[in-house]
Amino acid sequence: MGNTFGKQFKITSWGESHGPAIGVTLDGFPSLFKIDVEHIQSELQRRKPGQSEISTQRKEEDSIEILSGLFDGKTTGAPISMLIWNKDQRSKDYNHLKNVFRPSHADFTYQAKYGIRDWKGGGRASARETIARVASGAIAKQWLASKFNTEILGFVKQISDLKAQISNSSINHESIESNIVRCPDNKIANKMIEKIKEARKNGDSLGGIIECVAKNVPVGLGEPVFDKLDADLAKAILSIPACKGFEIGSGFSGIEMTGSEHNDEFFVNDDNKIKTKTNHSGGVQGGISNGEDIILRAAFKPTATIIRSQKTVDSEHNIVELKGKGRHDPCVLPRAVPIVEAMVAIVIADHALLNTANNNRN
Amino acid sequence: MGNTFGKQFKITSWGESHGPAIGVTLDGFPSLFKIDVEHIQSELQRRKPGQSEISTQRKEEDSIEILSGLFDGKTTGAPISMLIWNKDQRSKDYNHLKNVFRPSHADFTYQAKYGIRDWKGGGRASARETIARVASGAIAKQWLASKFNTEILGFVKQISDLKAQISNSSINHESIESNIVRCPDNKIANKMIEKIKEARKNGDSLGGIIECVAKNVPVGLGEPVFDKLDADLAKAILSIPACKGFEIGSGFSGIEMTGSEHNDEFFVNDDNKIKTKTNHSGGVQGGISNGEDIILRAAFKPTATIIRSQKTVDSEHNIVELKGKGRHDPCVLPRAVPIVEAMVAIVIADHALLNTANNNRN
Amino acid sequence: MGNTFGKQFKITSWGESHGPAIGVTLDGFPSLFKIDVEHIQSELQRRKPGQSEISTQRKEEDSIEILSGLFDGKTTGAPISMLIWNKDQRSKDYNHLKNVFRPSHADFTYQAKYGIRDWKGGGRASARETIARVASGAIAKQWLASKFNTEILGFVKQISDLKAQISNSSINHESIESNIVRCPDNKIANKMIEKIKEARKNGDSLGGIIECVAKNVPVGLGEPVFDKLDADLAKAILSIPACKGFEIGSGFSGIEMTGSEHNDEFFVNDDNKIKTKTNHSGGVQGGISNGEDIILRAAFKPTATIIRSQKTVDSEHNIVELKGKGRHDPCVLPRAVPIVEAMVAIVIADHALLNTANNNRN
Amino acid sequence: MGNTFGKQFKITSWGESHGPAIGVTLDGFPSLFKIDVEHIQSELQRRKPGQSEISTQRKEEDSIEILSGLFDGKTTGAPISMLIWNKDQRSKDYNHLKNVFRPSHADFTYQAKYGIRDWKGGGRASARETIARVASGAIAKQWLASKFNTEILGFVKQISDLKAQISNSSINHESIESNIVRCPDNKIANKMIEKIKEARKNGDSLGGIIECVAKNVPVGLGEPVFDKLDADLAKAILSIPACKGFEIGSGFSGIEMTGSEHNDEFFVNDDNKIKTKTNHSGGVQGGISNGEDIILRAAFKPTATIIRSQKTVDSEHNIVELKGKGRHDPCVLPRAVPIVEAMVAIVIADHALLNTANNNRN
Repeated sequence: MGNTFGKQFKITSWGESHGPAIGVTLDGFPSLFKIDVEHIQSELQRRKPGQSEISTQRKEEDSIEILSGLFDGKTTGAPISMLIWNKDQRSKDYNHLKNVFRPSHADFTYQAKYGIRDWKGGGRASARETIARVASGAIAKQWLASKFNTEILGFVKQISDLKAQISNSSINHESIESNIVRCPDNKIANKMIEKIKEARKNGDSLGGIIECVAKNVPVGLGEPVFDKLDADLAKAILSIPACKGFEIGSGFSGIEMTGSEHNDEFFVNDDNKIKTKTNHSGGVQGGISNGEDIILRAAFKPTATIIRSQKTVDSEHNIVELKGKGRHDPCVLPRAVPIVEAMVAIVIADHALLNTANNNRN
Repeated sequence: MGNTFGKQFKITSWGESHGPAIGVTLDGFPSLFKIDVEHIQSELQRRKPGQSEISTQRKEEDSIEILSGLFDGKTTGAPISMLIWNKDQRSKDYNHLKNVFRPSHADFTYQAKYGIRDWKGGGRASARETIARVASGAIAKQWLASKFNTEILGFVKQISDLKAQISNSSINHESIESNIVRCPDNKIANKMIEKIKEARKNGDSLGGIIECVAKNVPVGLGEPVFDKLDADLAKAILSIPACKGFEIGSGFSGIEMTGSEHNDEFFVNDDNKIKTKTNHSGGVQGGISNGEDIILRAAFKPTATIIRSQKTVDSEHNIVELKGKGRHDPCVLPRAVPIVEAMVAIVIADHALLNTANNNRN
Repeated sequence: MGNTFGKQFKITSWGESHGPAIGVTLDGFPSLFKIDVEHIQSELQRRKPGQSEISTQRKEEDSIEILSGLFDGKTTGAPISMLIWNKDQRSKDYNHLKNVFRPSHADFTYQAKYGIRDWKGGGRASARETIARVASGAIAKQWLASKFNTEILGFVKQISDLKAQISNSSINHESIESNIVRCPDNKIANKMIEKIKEARKNGDSLGGIIECVAKNVPVGLGEPVFDKLDADLAKAILSIPACKGFEIGSGFSGIEMTGSEHNDEFFVNDDNKIKTKTNHSGGVQGGISNGEDIILRAAFKPTATIIRSQKTVDSEHNIVELKGKGRHDPCVLPRAVPIVEAMVAIVIADHALLNTANNNRN
Repeated sequence: MGNTFGKQFKITSWGESHGPAIGVTLDGFPSLFKIDVEHIQSELQRRKPGQSEISTQRKEEDSIEILSGLFDGKTTGAPISMLIWNKDQRSKDYNHLKNVFRPSHADFTYQAKYGIRDWKGGGRASARETIARVASGAIAKQWLASKFNTEILGFVKQISDLKAQISNSSINHESIESNIVRCPDNKIANKMIEKIKEARKNGDSLGGIIECVAKNVPVGLGEPVFDKLDADLAKAILSIPACKGFEIGSGFSGIEMTGSEHNDEFFVNDDNKIKTKTNHSGGVQGGISNGEDIILRAAFKPTATIIRSQKTVDSEHNIVELKGKGRHDPCVLPRAVPIVEAMVAIVIADHALLNTANNNRN
């Protein structure tokens, strides 16, 4: 269970890292929308392995095929099935892991829960499943952009102890893509790249923070009291492999402020719209979007796969020495940027479609 | 929408702050379980307004009535309906707020989304709805304790800049309840209480962090890839009023570690069980519980209600001066402890019931 | 589980026949709708026990209380909680049934499934739970009438072998309510009443057919391929106690026609609308409403409760003689008419709210 | 929306008749189950076009590929993705239907709902989507057989006015498959075949009734009050293309019986099990299986596609003459037998997995 996300923009994901393919079915998407397949592909390129010298060297084209739901390039209201064939599996790299539980991986928990485990390349627990998220998220982005002019921009804010200095108002897709680490602060970006290369050389790995801003989100999205917009965003973000934390607006830093400092004062702007002077709320108040930028941050732990010797146990409860092998990312953050953006896009699109309170009110 | 939480341990909440009552219906709970109604009531006392000099002075008995689902004190498998009558509404305290959008409250977003707003006491957006969570969470706790010996302990970790020094292994229900701020570090607790009183005197408010530990959670809970245990916990926590952040295990602090430092080494303990030496994972790996303590933290912003003059706008887009009135909590954290515990209990109980992978595997 | 119905117009029902109350929470209903509480009450009167000489003599006011979700009489988008207190329980009438499984009742299956059973008045398996359906259905009816001018009319078509001759175009609420059996063919209605009285005298019971017509249903409701409008109607109808069959349009009688006879020829009417000359489809084609009247029929078995001696077994597997006692309906159909209407209204309202294909298409 | 069925045994279906493929993803299935792929294929052969002289002559291999969820032939708990490539599309046969609404087809309603329509071969509204049902149903059957020895047998009970005389106790898979119409009464079967051939010669079509019996269904399946086993079966059956009616047990014929005739008397059998002497309930009481055979019937209208001239309208509201072309089934029932069985299997498997009342009770 658990392979479906969303209530109205509803995706069902399937596929293992070393199986024949990865796929996703999107149900609930409105009809008559012209899908830009090249844009989906370009989003997948941002997630693709082997895209740069700081990512894993697995070689995949990750070329998308749409098998249903379109007619003359437009959506018909029928489910949209998307599929990507896996091509560069090297399952023999994993033979020695067959009975071994890698530390801080899902090997032990999958074995304990299911009594069986696809140990080739991590099987279903591999981050390769995020292809399904990025492909669906691309459609969500297209629809949100066309309907509300919404723009969703993720970027690397911090790698290890290297923190970027970035003003959200200045970032855009181009500045994010201007370097391979996807941090729009080029000076820090170079340091981050060096640090990641060094970690790889040491057979080690790094973590960090991705920030994501959603601009032009319509007012009124979110369904209190449990399906608050920020609650669904938190779930979406925490469901991404290696993510350990989520915050919105002031988040963990807001706790040292007083209420009088933290409250976002309302004013009326030149277009006679109600806006807030500050945005400690991060674009969500009472679980509902207020029209300000949605600003959130996701914490990613350092990649569990390291090319170092580690002690661990096997399925027979023996202590074993595990030697890291195989291709891997010394830091997942650069490739996780499009994944975070995709999950944010899916949640916002889902809530925009769900927003029957507005759609159907008298 | 959005008033139902959980898939198998499924609660549906209703009621406004100044309406006649608050209620919740629990569906999916196993039959033949003896409910301890006094325990539910005692949990509600921990959430109750007016419980101490640092909480709001609204006077409510918050006395629970169970209207269905029990027979001779035992569950029958039928939905359990619980209800609490509101008694100490002072709606006139809110008359001046009828057309005014309080900063960082849900007034503006509710009005924008629904086109109408129950402005008395915050209506549905009031934290009074959390009664439904605490009552249901008490049942979840009882069941988890009886079935797995699970214990769920929340406590105040930080108020403003005051950070407690607490070892998770030493805390227990009694040490948490030993002071009114619910921080088991008594020395810091006293400072916290002073700071909260001072904030009240200034008509201001404070935020902080609640930590929650779940002990004896069975291995195997969580449904990858979207309904991971940590993802559902994140949603549960972010759905609590005033919460702005969530982290599990190493969370935001883990990002400066390397993989070799962060990985939790497996070993085999004296009972021949596979355990980890460290617990940076926070009890969840690959979205599935691994049998270690689940450790999470929730960031709460300072209460939006302050007894100070603030500028804001009204529904006619006029700039108005808002003078704080009414009873309120200068800091929500002491009363939020049982709410956090309740949501954690509900998520774990839900996943324990959902865990058909284990329940039905061949 | 199973106490929630609908995806967008979502009701959660609770309460036992001899418990303190019956209730229902409606979530997902649009805001700003003026609820007519008297209309809800008048629908409940049509379902009420003791309403005529051919129904059970249990005396209940069935007086509705709305505990949440309204503000100044209008919906706010918050969940609407409705409650009815039970008043005329006579649990002692059921003492002798404590360990006995009444034939064709739910006693045996509830005991087998749950290991416990509320034997007082049938507990949760009592048709008294249908109060929740009728109350929610009344709101669905009001909304559909106001939004689309939809009218939903159920009536008794057949009792035992007595078949009414009725033209759907001529029936209306008044003709249905013109007699206590709710059959608009007054001549047959009298015979039905006599037959029911006779059955009661014999301590026996009767079954029959209810037909329901929904007029002015908008084109486009239904979500293929599984959530077809007729599929959801079938589920709704079969979920009513004592229902054993469902058909739409030509139903079971259409099977002897050929395709050339059965096909509904399209034409264009004076308003330039596409209509069909016949309506063997019953208003649904390919799972989606086509704008014609929705016509369905529900088969109800004779009431299982009879006031006759029957052989059965008890929980100890003894053969026992069961003597019928207590108040009961010799024929459920007259009271089931508003229940069928309610379920049809709920399904149509749910699909109207769900119809994002139309609501959001480009 | 509407392309997902089931709560725990959860299938998501996709694909159009003339698209590249039809597929389905099954989520929630237990791990460690050995899937018999040949059995899935053999079930698909029973549904396949071109299987006999009385079915459509479209030629498809309908060869199944499983793309995920298996490891060494066993399920892993991950979603199972199944795919079948379409090969014998003849879209040009449909060119003349581009703007025409075929009577009693889904052309008009799809166009009205979605504003766009895949007119090639009926697109998503084609019964070709039932491949997804039969493939998933085969897995449900395998699991039910292995777990409970459950057997699910569907057969043709009536074609037009030709009614088979069949005792449910005598039928088995072989007798059903002994002739191409899938009616175990061979004498009537021959007449049915002749009648179908004659209808084809006349360019016309026929309807009928399929009966389905599920033997060895465990006691206790079904979730009152809305997700009753019979309610979910009704939905499952009505979601099948061309189905217009459903009944369980005595169904529409039971209405002329009295309660004293209809009630199923309990007794204790030689194995000390509680059984009923008659089975008018059809294996379900109070919405929960009672261990008796589940017996249901589905009414199918005559195929809407006929090879005759018919009047209809086009999308421009012109009256047009429609000449039937293309390959089609003069009677869907023989091929619908495995579809009915599949849907029944899916519902029962879903409820067996859902049955937490039993699985988790104290």
